[in-house]
Amino acid sequence: MKAKLLLAAALFAAPALAQTDKLAAPSPGEIVAAAPASEWVAISPDDLLVMDLAPGAWEQPRRVVIQLIPAPFSTAWTANVRTLAKAHWWDGLAIVRAQDNYVVQWGDPDGEDTAKAKPLPAGISATSEADYVTSLARLPLPSDAPPPIRTCSQGRDCNPTEAEVRYNARAKMLTDAAGVDAYATFSLFRNGWPLAADVGGGKAWPVHCYGMVGVGRGMSPDAGSGAELYTVIGHAPRHLDRNIALVGRVIEGIEHLSTLPRGTEALGFYKTPQERTPITSIRLGSEVKGLAAYQYLSTESETFARYADARANRRDPFFIVPAGGADICNIPVPVRRAPG
Amino acid sequence: MKAKLLLAAALFAAPALAQTDKLAAPSPGEIVAAAPASEWVAISPDDLLVMDLAPGAWEQPRRVVIQLIPAPFSTAWTANVRTLAKAHWWDGLAIVRAQDNYVVQWGDPDGEDTAKAKPLPAGISATSEADYVTSLARLPLPSDAPPPIRTCSQGRDCNPTEAEVRYNARAKMLTDAAGVDAYATFSLFRNGWPLAADVGGGKAWPVHCYGMVGVGRGMSPDAGSGAELYTVIGHAPRHLDRNIALVGRVIEGIEHLSTLPRGTEALGFYKTPQERTPITSIRLGSEVKGLAAYQYLSTESETFARYADARANRRDPFFIVPAGGADICNIPVPVRRAPG
Repeated sequence: MKAKLLLAAALFAAPALAQTDKLAAPSPGEIVAAAPASEWVAISPDDLLVMDLAPGAWEQPRRVVIQLIPAPFSTAWTANVRTLAKAHWWDGLAIVRAQDNYVVQWGDPDGEDTAKAKPLPAGISATSEADYVTSLARLPLPSDAPPPIRTCSQGRDCNPTEAEVRYNARAKMLTDAAGVDAYATFSLFRNGWPLAADVGGGKAWPVHCYGMVGVGRGMSPDAGSGAELYTVIGHAPRHLDRNIALVGRVIEGIEHLSTLPRGTEALGFYKTPQERTPITSIRLGSEVKGLAAYQYLSTESETFARYADARANRRDPFFIVPAGGADICNIPVPVRRAPG
Repeated sequence: MKAKLLLAAALFAAPALAQTDKLAAPSPGEIVAAAPASEWVAISPDDLLVMDLAPGAWEQPRRVVIQLIPAPFSTAWTANVRTLAKAHWWDGLAIVRAQDNYVVQWGDPDGEDTAKAKPLPAGISATSEADYVTSLARLPLPSDAPPPIRTCSQGRDCNPTEAEVRYNARAKMLTDAAGVDAYATFSLFRNGWPLAADVGGGKAWPVHCYGMVGVGRGMSPDAGSGAELYTVIGHAPRHLDRNIALVGRVIEGIEHLSTLPRGTEALGFYKTPQERTPITSIRLGSEVKGLAAYQYLSTESETFARYADARANRRDPFFIVPAGGADICNIPVPVRRAPG
C-alpha cells in the first residue's frame, strides 16, 4: 500500500510502465527521454554561475549551478553578475535569508551598513528602473505584430478579419504549450525560457517560476546591482514579474537552497551570523575545472511541444482526468547533464 | 544595499511603511491585519490533525498542524484519516519521501510488503474512484445553475440572453477574487478553501496549492485509504486535481516538512531507514492538550475580497507594475492563531 503517488512526475525516471503496458500513453518524462540528441542545446560554461556553499553538517558538498538569462533580458544586471563572479566578490559572504514558500537570498550580510559593507568591484554599472523596463520590452515578437486578442466581450460582432485569423493562428501556436495565463495576455517559451507576453503592448518578459534567480533591491526606484540575488523556492510569485530583474535559473542543486532552515526574523532573514550558510565561492562556469556539460531541451523542438502537451494533458496510466491545461511554471524546461 | 526584496510579501509583518508614508496603498498583509474580529472564523479542534515529528538535530520540537477539508469534499478519506488518528495508527511510522519542488509524503515504510505492513485499524472504509468523482461533484453552485460560459469562438452572435447576463454577473462575482485559471473554467474561494470549477459540468473541486494535503495511492482504480498522506512543498501541481483526493492543508509548521533533506531514490523516496524522519504521533486536535486556537479569514468577507484584489494588483510602494491578476494558489487564505 505504499502509494507510488506520482510515478508520472519523475521527469527522468525509467519508463517502467511502458514495459508492462505497451499501449500506455507516454509520460512527460518518457517523451523527454526519447528526444533525439539534435534537440538538446548546449549551455555555454560562460553562461553558468557555480555557487559552492560551505559543506553541510555531514561534510557533504553543496554546489548550486545557475544558468544566466540571455539578452535581451536584464542585460544591465547579468553584466554586473559576471563582473562580480570574475572578481570573486561573493566568496566568504553568505545566504542571508530563507522564507518558506518564497525565496532564499544571498549576498553581503553587512550590505545595509555603509561603514561595514563590502565594496563592490570596479566595473559595476548603475542600474535604473528605466534599464529594467527597456530590457523587458525588447523581445522580438513575430514581425507582423498581431492585434490584441479579439473577443466578443466588448459586444463586437465576431467575423474575424484576415489579419485576425492570422493572429489567432499564431497565438494558438505560441500558446499551445503554455495555455492560459493569469498574469498576462498569454505565456510562451522562447529559446529555452518561460516568458509572459502582453500582445497589445508588444512586450514580453521572463517569469518567476520555481528556481528562477532574481536581483534583490530596495524600494523603487532602486533597481538593485546584482550583488544580492535570490531564488524562488515555492509557488511561483508571479506578482514580482516586471517588478524585479530576473537574471537566471538554478539548473542543478536547488535542494541545497530549498532545504535550508527558514530564518525567524521578518521576511525570513536569519537572526544571527551563526544561522547563515557561508558561500565558499561563486564562479563563472568557464573558471570551474571539471564542470559537467549541461544542455536544455530546445523549446522550439517537436519533442518539447509533445512534452508540454503531455504536461497539460496527462494521459499516462496514473491519471484519471487530464487537466486540459497547465500554467507555464508547471511546465519546467528539461535540463540535463550531457550524456556520455 | 541589503535589499528588502519582498517587504510586501510578509503577510503578517508590521505595517512599517504605512507609518512613514500615510498615502501608501496598503499591502495585502496590512489589509488582513486590519480585518475586524468578526471576519475571522474559528477552526474546530476536531478538524485539526496534529503531527509531531521526532525532535530535530538540535532537539527542537517539530509540530505540523493540518486542517481537514470539510464536506462535501473527500469525505470517504477524511473519515478514514480521523479513524487512523484516533487509533494512533501513525505513531512510530515515518516520513518516507521528500521530492524537491513537489511533495513530502508519510506513512508506513513497509506498506508495500504485505508480510510486514502495519495492519489498518478497524473501521477503515474501502474507497473507490467512484467515491472520489462523486465527492468532487457535490459542491452546490448557485441554485439557478448557470449555463456554460458563452463565447463567440463558436461563431455565434453575442447578444446574451437574460439568463446569460445573470450568469455572467455571478461568474464575475465568483471569479473576481481568483481570476483566470489555466486548469478549469474558473477558480474561486468558498468557505475558506481554494476551489476550481467547471461551470459547464456543474462541478467544483479543491486544488493542489502549496501546503495542501492529499491521499497517496497506487495506479487507478486504487483510490488510497488515507493511511499514506503527502503535502505539496513546491509549485502547485494542479495536474493532480481531480486525480487524487485532497483531505486538508497545513496551517502551521510546514517548514518542518519543506526543509527535510530530499530523498535520493526515484521520486524522492529515502534510500535507508536512517534517512527517514520518525513520526512521534499524529492526533486529532481535540486530543492535544494546550493546543492553540486557530482561525481563518472568511473568504466571504469584505476584507478577503480586498486582500485578494491587492494580491492581484500590488499597489504598495515596492511595486512598479501591478500584475492585474493572480492564480488562485498565489492568494493563500490567511490563517492565524486566535489573538489574546
